Amino acid sequence: MASKRSIGILLFDGFETLDVMGPVELFGMHPQAFSIHFIAEESGPVSSAQGQQVIAEHKCSKDDQYDIVLVPGGKGTRSAIENESLLGWIQRVAENSEILCSVCTGTALLARAGVLDGKRATSNKMSFAWVKEQGPEVHWVSQARWVEDGDLFTSSGVSAGMDMALAIISRLLGEKAAEDAALWSEYTWHRNANQDPFAQAWGLAD
Amino acid sequence: MASKRSIGILLFDGFETLDVMGPVELFGMHPQAFSIHFIAEESGPVSSAQGQQVIAEHKCSKDDQYDIVLVPGGKGTRSAIENESLLGWIQRVAENSEILCSVCTGTALLARAGVLDGKRATSNKMSFAWVKEQGPEVHWVSQARWVEDGDLFTSSGVSAGMDMALAIISRLLGEKAAEDAALWSEYTWHRNANQDPFAQAWGLAD
Repeated sequence: MASKRSIGILLFDGFETLDVMGPVELFGMHPQAFSIHFIAEESGPVSSAQGQQVIAEHKCSKDDQYDIVLVPGGKGTRSAIENESLLGWIQRVAENSEILCSVCTGTALLARAGVLDGKRATSNKMSFAWVKEQGPEVHWVSQARWVEDGDLFTSSGVSAGMDMALAIISRLLGEKAAEDAALWSEYTWHRNANQDPFAQAWGLAD
Repeated sequence: MASKRSIGILLFDGFETLDVMGPVELFGMHPQAFSIHFIAEESGPVSSAQGQQVIAEHKCSKDDQYDIVLVPGGKGTRSAIENESLLGWIQRVAENSEILCSVCTGTALLARAGVLDGKRATSNKMSFAWVKEQGPEVHWVSQARWVEDGDLFTSSGVSAGMDMALAIISRLLGEKAAEDAALWSEYTWHRNANQDPFAQAWGLAD
């Protein structure tokens, strides 16, 4: 059996709850394959955009290395994009990760960190214009549930992170493992990455 | 404008992450209408079934009163059903709440607390047989995304809690408010309570 992959999820004040917890639920269906860690600038309680507190197990360190790095969105991204040490952390962990992914406006942080330059990416539809401004060198895809570009995955808003997480599970462990995670959590996987009803709702459809 | 409704969500070690965080995300889309509180037997960190820690703001008290009470499932329910003080807390808050709801195997806790006797209810499909054993006087509905019986809402497994949360938002704030919460979180609401693809998958369809 392959060794367990570590998943590092970045938390910051004002992170969007489901951006983090949707993927946690689905990756968590395969505890023999993944270990999940919450990281923040300081270890300890971090407040979500919805006002509850979650504990970051580790503080960001120069030596951090995770197989999978996930960056959530949320209203906290509006100040986080100006946080050079956080962006530096993203740049460093991105270099050594097997998969780098973001949910919702977390894509803005990846864009500002420069790790999306020349790559295809998507983000939350309501905030799409703002996210695009953070990465003029990114090939933005407005109509997509999630986008895969090599080892980079970016998803649309909030719930779309769950479909992206299943796509990552499918790539790493096989389609059956993704289907099992969806079945056990009674989640209907939207498995077509190009089908995006919300792009239409926000006037962003092709 | 109507005053804010308080939502009390019970946490216990081994609660299922998305059972809690899916509804938190959706109720959290209307912060002017709902205030969300995490309660546990002791205030402070509580470990989810997926191994992360969330902070319970309040400890369970005899005088607790919440407009909406939500009880999640998860592997922690297996010991929680033997916890008389927790069941007593559920009985007391149920009496004064406007809406009592559970997600997934959280229904087993409501059943053991006796608050489902003579009522219609559903639960997680994989663990349906076990949950049924906890409430011989309950009218169990095997094929349902969620069940409404008066002011009592019970949902199927994990993700189904999100559809139930939207149904509660719809009842309390109107359908448009539920549609907005789904739109803003880019969630496709499964709004037909009787459509349950997972009952079929587990051989529980009518």
